[in-house]
Amino acid sequence: MDVRAGILVTGTEVLTGRVTDRNGPWLAERLRQLGVDVGRVVVVGDRPDDLRTALTQLDDLDLVVTSGGLGPTADDLTLEIVAAHRGRALHHDAELEERIAERVEAMRRRRGWAVDADALRAANRKQALVPAGASLLEPVGTAPGVVVPGPPPVVVLPGPPSELQQMWAAAEASPLVQEVLARAGTLEQRTLRLWGPPEAALADALRRAGDLSGVELTTCVRTAELEVVGRFAPAAADVWDGLGAHLQEEFGPALFSPDGRSVDEVVADLAVGTGATVATAESCTGGLLGARLTEQPGSSGWVVGGVVAYADRVKIEQLGVPPGLLERHGAVSEPVARAMAEGVRDRLRSTVGVGITGVAGPGGGTETKPVGLVHLAVAGPGTTLHRELRAGGARTDIRTYAVQHALHLLREALD
Amino acid sequence: MDVRAGILVTGTEVLTGRVTDRNGPWLAERLRQLGVDVGRVVVVGDRPDDLRTALTQLDDLDLVVTSGGLGPTADDLTLEIVAAHRGRALHHDAELEERIAERVEAMRRRRGWAVDADALRAANRKQALVPAGASLLEPVGTAPGVVVPGPPPVVVLPGPPSELQQMWAAAEASPLVQEVLARAGTLEQRTLRLWGPPEAALADALRRAGDLSGVELTTCVRTAELEVVGRFAPAAADVWDGLGAHLQEEFGPALFSPDGRSVDEVVADLAVGTGATVATAESCTGGLLGARLTEQPGSSGWVVGGVVAYADRVKIEQLGVPPGLLERHGAVSEPVARAMAEGVRDRLRSTVGVGITGVAGPGGGTETKPVGLVHLAVAGPGTTLHRELRAGGARTDIRTYAVQHALHLLREALD
Repeated sequence: MDVRAGILVTGTEVLTGRVTDRNGPWLAERLRQLGVDVGRVVVVGDRPDDLRTALTQLDDLDLVVTSGGLGPTADDLTLEIVAAHRGRALHHDAELEERIAERVEAMRRRRGWAVDADALRAANRKQALVPAGASLLEPVGTAPGVVVPGPPPVVVLPGPPSELQQMWAAAEASPLVQEVLARAGTLEQRTLRLWGPPEAALADALRRAGDLSGVELTTCVRTAELEVVGRFAPAAADVWDGLGAHLQEEFGPALFSPDGRSVDEVVADLAVGTGATVATAESCTGGLLGARLTEQPGSSGWVVGGVVAYADRVKIEQLGVPPGLLERHGAVSEPVARAMAEGVRDRLRSTVGVGITGVAGPGGGTETKPVGLVHLAVAGPGTTLHRELRAGGARTDIRTYAVQHALHLLREALD
Repeated sequence: MDVRAGILVTGTEVLTGRVTDRNGPWLAERLRQLGVDVGRVVVVGDRPDDLRTALTQLDDLDLVVTSGGLGPTADDLTLEIVAAHRGRALHHDAELEERIAERVEAMRRRRGWAVDADALRAANRKQALVPAGASLLEPVGTAPGVVVPGPPPVVVLPGPPSELQQMWAAAEASPLVQEVLARAGTLEQRTLRLWGPPEAALADALRRAGDLSGVELTTCVRTAELEVVGRFAPAAADVWDGLGAHLQEEFGPALFSPDGRSVDEVVADLAVGTGATVATAESCTGGLLGARLTEQPGSSGWVVGGVVAYADRVKIEQLGVPPGLLERHGAVSEPVARAMAEGVRDRLRSTVGVGITGVAGPGGGTETKPVGLVHLAVAGPGTTLHRELRAGGARTDIRTYAVQHALHLLREALD
């Protein structure tokens, strides 16, 4: 871990929490794959002083990557500040402006914009400024990126994640970045995931794991899963493997992912491997489980579809839940969760059906059925599994937690 | 904006992008409401040197809030490093340990954990260490927080978002934090959202908006929406109102949210206001639109439910899409999108039905129907609206973009 990078995410919308940053995480993983360890991610608003301070504070690293602040509006300042920080004047690149103008014109035609030509020219011109001595990264959207010589070199990338990601290959290939990468070793990262045991049990097992030197170990709790991550140079691979064997022995099947796959991926692999198809019946999660299953590429091979049964009459009419069951037990109950899972399995003719019904809040809770109560059921060809959950937190937390549990129950049923 | 805070998010899982940080954004907005401006958010891994550097680099601010690194595992280091940075020894608080033990025991019983008593004791003991002179924040989960005297004072909070959020009230009330807050003014934040116009048109309109001094203005593009945000002291409220009037005149109905509501909230308000109910029929988005509609509290009042029609036979059997339509035009086509929207409206007896069908990729694209092609339809009681999209980016981007467009088409239909 000799070569270290800093990431500077700019944008008041990110700093103030209105937009969740996706670039820092993406860049960190990309750099790790290149053997570069990320030391710090700094988020600042579009303010000259804060941008300058942040750049100065990242000067001790080997490489700096920035995202955002390259747009045509006046609050987009990153390029100007980076150039000034490195003592490099901005030059107007007439040919670049022409290429940007062509891109903008194509976009304008496709989207049917009616924009003043002068306004477009001003926007294009602002985006065609390049610091002296910098390598240009051709625009993917309308803003080009640059690599400004260091030390450390600064890679300046646009903020929209898909633009940044598509531009990365060119950044990686630029000679200034290649020079840094040549000094980097290989930085492996491996993950183990557990479902069920408490964090204290993991802490205890790790204390008894023996000598782990050479492996930088971190653990965290993510929506009730325990995640153990090791980062190491290839020489320490044996240490990691030894730890895996130790945890396998300690936790058995609770170590559901010894190879780092997410529960989503494990479920997808099990479905493909067994030839099972899946259908979902969701009440309080409103489609979130279906969305998560179908986020997996290739899910059309095993996800049949589902029913979002938010209203009770949809539970009755589309899933065949008996009205008497709803009357006797209420919509949030074990019998209704089972009937939803079995109903969607039968109606959509899948191998497995999943039912979720609960009180996501903030309203709708009662003394016997408080906010956070969720009933899950997974109906296979033979038996139906059921779980009752008591989730904490806000509406989003409860829904996410319910979906996470449903995925693990589905994993259990498919396994 | 005289009082400024820094946020230190710790955790290798956040730094390396495996977990998306939700605490930085949440804290930034909470602090803003208290009149405290956030200058920088820094993310570092669970490494002593990086934690120390980050703390030092935040010492120029008036208040520092940290999140994460308070757990029982050995990689949880934040409290120890903050105490050392402020030159304060850690003391063991026996009564606190007892309270933690009670919480852990209740949790153990509820979840049925079988854990070694010594392991639990070691975990509890580690979490019962408090820096000398610090104010204690009672645990919400198992880890307590602290406020360590400054300058600047450091508020040390746990990493799980729901724990951090529930602990915040106590942090805010602590005398050390109150002292800082007493110096803060009022920092207003207002938002305007536009749908349709390009960023260059907004840049142009802003250049012609006259004197905006006193308002810190930022703009960004979020899933094809343009967002304009102003932060200002109460004295500059007129300037912001003037800008709103100017943009209203420039963009008319494209300024769909003059009050900062998201399109999700606008749709919810329109549905409640008109008494319309909504049902969804989703293919490539697999439930994402349903999930987003039902994320709104109170959505059970107007969302009836929906069908995730991933397989063609679900489109036929559950939505009544004529098989001939699928044969002639293919599943990703205008007629099928219309039939899905009308089918779900009729079958689920809602006022409005939304249909989404597209190629989300990465596979499944053809020359005439490439990855990114999406057909949307919104069927009202009378007419059915339709849009054809060509979305760029990865599978996630295409799905998110399709849902965003569907929400705007739904808004148009309800309006």
